Amino acid sequence: MRWSKAHLFTQKETPADAEIASHKLMLRAGLIKKVTPGIYTLGFMALKAQRKFESILREEFEKDGLIEILMPVVHPAELWQETNRWTEMGDGLARFKNRNGQEFCLGATHEEVITDYVRHDLKSYRDLPVIIYQIQTKFRDEIRPRFGLMRGREFTMKDAYSFDVDRDAALDSYDLMHAAYKRAFDRLGLDYRIVKADSGNIGGDKSEEFHVIADSGEDSLMVSTESEFAANSEVCPAIDVEDVVYGGTEELALEEFPTPGLRSIADLSKATNTEEKFLVKTMFYSVTDDQSKDGLSPIAVCLRGDDEVNPIKIKNHFGLANPAELLTDEEVKQITGASPGSCGPVGINIPIYFDNGLKHFKNFVVGANKDDFHLKNVNTGRDFQLKEWVDFRMAKEGDKSPDGKGLLKEVRGIEVGHIFYLGTKYSKAMKATFLDKNGKAQLIEMGCYGIGVGRTVQAAIEQSHDEDGVVWPRALAPFDVHICHLDPKDEKVDEVVQDIEAGLQGLGIDVFVDDRKERPGVKFKDADLIGFPLRITVGGRGVSNGEVEVFHRASKEKESLPIAEVVSKVGMLLNN
Amino acid sequence: MRWSKAHLFTQKETPADAEIASHKLMLRAGLIKKVTPGIYTLGFMALKAQRKFESILREEFEKDGLIEILMPVVHPAELWQETNRWTEMGDGLARFKNRNGQEFCLGATHEEVITDYVRHDLKSYRDLPVIIYQIQTKFRDEIRPRFGLMRGREFTMKDAYSFDVDRDAALDSYDLMHAAYKRAFDRLGLDYRIVKADSGNIGGDKSEEFHVIADSGEDSLMVSTESEFAANSEVCPAIDVEDVVYGGTEELALEEFPTPGLRSIADLSKATNTEEKFLVKTMFYSVTDDQSKDGLSPIAVCLRGDDEVNPIKIKNHFGLANPAELLTDEEVKQITGASPGSCGPVGINIPIYFDNGLKHFKNFVVGANKDDFHLKNVNTGRDFQLKEWVDFRMAKEGDKSPDGKGLLKEVRGIEVGHIFYLGTKYSKAMKATFLDKNGKAQLIEMGCYGIGVGRTVQAAIEQSHDEDGVVWPRALAPFDVHICHLDPKDEKVDEVVQDIEAGLQGLGIDVFVDDRKERPGVKFKDADLIGFPLRITVGGRGVSNGEVEVFHRASKEKESLPIAEVVSKVGMLLNN
Repeated sequence: MRWSKAHLFTQKETPADAEIASHKLMLRAGLIKKVTPGIYTLGFMALKAQRKFESILREEFEKDGLIEILMPVVHPAELWQETNRWTEMGDGLARFKNRNGQEFCLGATHEEVITDYVRHDLKSYRDLPVIIYQIQTKFRDEIRPRFGLMRGREFTMKDAYSFDVDRDAALDSYDLMHAAYKRAFDRLGLDYRIVKADSGNIGGDKSEEFHVIADSGEDSLMVSTESEFAANSEVCPAIDVEDVVYGGTEELALEEFPTPGLRSIADLSKATNTEEKFLVKTMFYSVTDDQSKDGLSPIAVCLRGDDEVNPIKIKNHFGLANPAELLTDEEVKQITGASPGSCGPVGINIPIYFDNGLKHFKNFVVGANKDDFHLKNVNTGRDFQLKEWVDFRMAKEGDKSPDGKGLLKEVRGIEVGHIFYLGTKYSKAMKATFLDKNGKAQLIEMGCYGIGVGRTVQAAIEQSHDEDGVVWPRALAPFDVHICHLDPKDEKVDEVVQDIEAGLQGLGIDVFVDDRKERPGVKFKDADLIGFPLRITVGGRGVSNGEVEVFHRASKEKESLPIAEVVSKVGMLLNN
Repeated sequence: MRWSKAHLFTQKETPADAEIASHKLMLRAGLIKKVTPGIYTLGFMALKAQRKFESILREEFEKDGLIEILMPVVHPAELWQETNRWTEMGDGLARFKNRNGQEFCLGATHEEVITDYVRHDLKSYRDLPVIIYQIQTKFRDEIRPRFGLMRGREFTMKDAYSFDVDRDAALDSYDLMHAAYKRAFDRLGLDYRIVKADSGNIGGDKSEEFHVIADSGEDSLMVSTESEFAANSEVCPAIDVEDVVYGGTEELALEEFPTPGLRSIADLSKATNTEEKFLVKTMFYSVTDDQSKDGLSPIAVCLRGDDEVNPIKIKNHFGLANPAELLTDEEVKQITGASPGSCGPVGINIPIYFDNGLKHFKNFVVGANKDDFHLKNVNTGRDFQLKEWVDFRMAKEGDKSPDGKGLLKEVRGIEVGHIFYLGTKYSKAMKATFLDKNGKAQLIEMGCYGIGVGRTVQAAIEQSHDEDGVVWPRALAPFDVHICHLDPKDEKVDEVVQDIEAGLQGLGIDVFVDDRKERPGVKFKDADLIGFPLRITVGGRGVSNGEVEVFHRASKEKESLPIAEVVSKVGMLLNN
C-alpha cells in the first residue's frame, strides 16, 4: 500500500480531548477519527489491526469447534423484557420506537437474542454442549464516553455463549473458553493478567477478567507479590497479614463522651490520640435493588477507621443486581437520630454487619447516635447484637494474598476480556429448556464470554508506545514493514522500493510505502508515530552504494543492509 | 465441520410468513432465523456465504487500490441535518435520543459520515482521487419488511464513496466502480443485468443498478429483445413503435356532452365506442418536496387512456427529492371544480404537461371539469395552452427499445447493487472542498456505490434453487462438499470419512459432514435442502466395496468412485 493513495493524514498537535497516550496516538496517527463523543470511524490501519485480532480469535475458537453466527445490532424490546434487563439496564441501553410504535434497543450484549436463538431448536441433551460466538457492533450509552475506543458508546465485541446440560458441564465450557482466551491473548504478546472478577448485572457466580497491564488502566487489580494470584480490587478478599488487636482483654464500662465537631475519623483520631485503624466507623447502606419504592432496606456496616467499604462485596453478599447504595445523611438521621459522623451500632434497630478486620477489637470507640457524642469501651454482644461477621472492606496493598503466598500489590489494568459462568439466569427467565436422558425438561446451563476487540487494539498501544509514537506488537501491527521511500521520482530508487515491497509481500509480510513528496525528517517522524515494527529507508545515496537502512521501531537499533539481502534478512527477522 | 456439533436444525414445514422461495428455503435450511420482522440472525452457513462474497468484493476492490475503513452504525443528528436528509428521510430513518438528549440515527447510508470523514483532512487536489469503502450494518425502518434478507430492516451493506476534482474525474471513478462491480458479480456466476436507474433521494444524475434476474424480483426491468439495453421501468424512456394517430387532420368545433356516471377510462371507452388508447386522461400531481406547508404546487398531466403515469419521471423532470404525489380528490375538486373522473385540461389555471404519446392527437375527448360531462373535439393550442411535451408515462412491453435496437421486454430483477454519480450534492451541503492547482477552493465531486451483501446471498438462492432446496453457486456455497456419513459408529466408515474430509480440506475445499444419528433418507433430504455443490455418500456397503457415491446437486447426476480416487477427482471437479 502506498501512502500517496491511502487518505492518511497524521497530526502533530495533541488532540485537546484525549487524556491517555493511546487515545492521543490513535488520533494523531490517523487510526481513528471522532464522529461524535464515544463514536469513531476506524481508519484503514485500525481496521487492519482489528481484523488481525479477529483472525486470531477465529483461529483459536475454530480449534475448539465453536460456531460463528451473526446476531443483529437492533433488538426487539420483548426479548429484553423477558429477562427484566429492559428495566435493569436503565439509561445505558439505547432505545427507540419505530414508525409503528414497536420498541427496540441497540444490543449492549446478546444474552437475550442468543437464548432466543437456541431455545426454539434445541430439544435434547444430545444437542449439547454447544458454544456459539459472533463478532459484532455493540452500543452502550456511556454517561461519560472517554479514552477513544477504550470506553466508547459504539464498539466491536466478540461475544460467545455456552450451553450445557448441567453446572459441571458448564464449568467445562468455561474452562475451555478460559484456555482459548489465554491462547489468543498469548499470541498478541501483551503483558496481561487473568483476575477474579465481579459478575456485574450479567448474572452468575463465577467470572474472571483478562486485563492488559497499563498504568492508565481504569481498573485496580490486586496481584500477589509471590504467586499467580490476581483479582479485581472490587472482589479481592481482604486479609490482614497480622491480626489488628485493640482494647485489651477485659470488657470495660460503656461510657459516653463529648466530641463536639468531630465528624471525621481523622479528627477523632487526633482528638482521642488513637490511630485511625483502632477506631471503628459505621456506614449505612441500602441492600435492595428496588429503587422505585421509598421503603429502604438499610443495614449498618462497621469497619476499621482506615478501611474502606467495598459496595460490590455487599452487593454480592445480598445477591443484588447493582452495587449497594450509601444512605443519604437524611436517611441516616431518620434511623439513628444523628448525623453520619456521630453514628454507631449501639441502640439502632437495623441489621449490623461487622467487618472481619474488627475480630480482635474490644472496648472500642463508636459514634453515640447523638450529634457530637461518641461512646468508648463498646463491646460486641454486650452493647449490641451483630448480625454477621463479613468481609465488606476493600483489600489494600500489603494485605495477605488470599492464596496464602506473598502480599497484595496493586497494579492497573485495562479490561479486555471477561468470562462468566451464568448458570440458569437467562434460561430460566426465557424458558430455554432441553429434555435430559430421562425425558425430563431441564433448564440449560449457560456461560458468556466477551472480548472488546477495538479496546484490545487500543490497550496494546497503551501498553506499547514511547514518546515518539506507537510501538505495534507484531501480531496486531496493521503493516509489518514501513518503507521510507526518500526519492519517489528517482526511477532507480523506485525500482529498489518496488523489488523490496514485492519480495516481502511474497513472504506474506504486509508492507506500507511512504511515497509522499515530503522531507526525510517528516517521513521518519511519521514512521515513528505510526510505529510499524520495522522501517526500511531507501534513498538515492544508499541505493548508489547498494545499501538500505533497517530500523527496529521498538529497540531503535539501526543497521545497513545490502539491497540484495534485505528481503531475506527482514523475512527471517519477522517470520521467526 | 460436523453436523452433530453445528447447532443446525432444518425444518420440513414451510414457514407461514415467507412468500418467496429463497426466504422459505433460508428459514427451512437454518440459514437465518427471525428475531422480529425484518431483523434476522445469520446462522453459520449464511454467515459463511456472506463472508465469501465479502472476500470477493475485497479482492476486487484491492485491485483498484480502494481503502477500507469502518464507519459507525450510530450517527449524530447534526451530520444528517447538514444535508437536510434528517428531514427528507422521514420515518425510514430510525432515530433515538440518548440519556443527555443528544439525537442520533441509525445509519441508513453513510454519505454524511464519509463526507465528514474526508473534509477535515483532505486539503489539496493532490489528495484526490480517493475511493473509500466499508462493509457495515445498516438500518432502515421499512414500512413492510418482507422476503427475509431481501427487504429487511437491518442488513449488511458494502458501501463505497469516491472523491474527485471534477465531473470527468468523478465519472472515471464511476466507471472504475462499474468495472469492479462487474468483475465481482461475474465471479458469483449469477444471471444479472446492469440497468439504468433512478437516483432516488441520494442525489446526482447518473446511476445504474445491478439486478439478479429472478421471477419473484421486486423490480420491473425493461430489457431489449435485441441488444444489451436495460433500464429500470421507473426510468425507461417510453417510445411508441408506431405513432398513435387520432382525430383526423381538421380541427372540429369543441362540444360538451353528458357522461353521467362515467368516471373511468374503461366506462368512457365503452360508452363512446372509442378504444382506451384513443382517449386522453388527465391526472393531477403536486411537484414540490415541501410537504409541510399547505401550499401545493399542482400540475396536470395528460396521457393516453391506456398509459400509466410514471411519478419517478415527474420527480426527475422537476428535480424533486421524492416521487411526485397524486393530488387527493378534494384537491382536484378545488382546482377544477369537478371530480377526478370528469377533469381535463380546458379552462384550468395550472401548468399542463402533455405526454409525447399524444403528439398525433386531434379532436380528442377529455373531461369537462364539470361532473358528468366531457368535451369532444378538443385541440391543443386552440382550447388550452400546454406548458411542455414530456415523457411522463411508464414504458411498456412492446415499446421500442430506446437504443433503437429491438423492442422492450419486461423481466423481474432483484436489485443487489447500485452505483451513483452524486456530483456536489453532499460536498456543497457539508462544505467539503479542496484547493485546486490555482489554490482556489472547489467542491469535491462525489460518487457512491452500494451492494446489499446479505441480499445478494439470498438473490443467489432465489435464482438458483429447485423443488428440493437450495442449489448453491460454488462461489457462495458455505461448504463445497457435503459428506453424508451413513455409519458414524462404524470405525472403518468413519476412517474413510475422515480421510476424504482431510484430503479435500488439504485442497482448500470446505467440507461439511453429516454425522448425525439419522436415517439415510433424512440425510439425503437435508443435503438436498442445504444444497452444497457436491455430495459424497460414505456408507458401510460402499466402503466394503471400496466405493463412495458422488452426487452433483445441480444436475442430480450420480457416480460411484473408488475411495482412493475420490479426493483427487472431487478436487479436480471443484477447482477447475
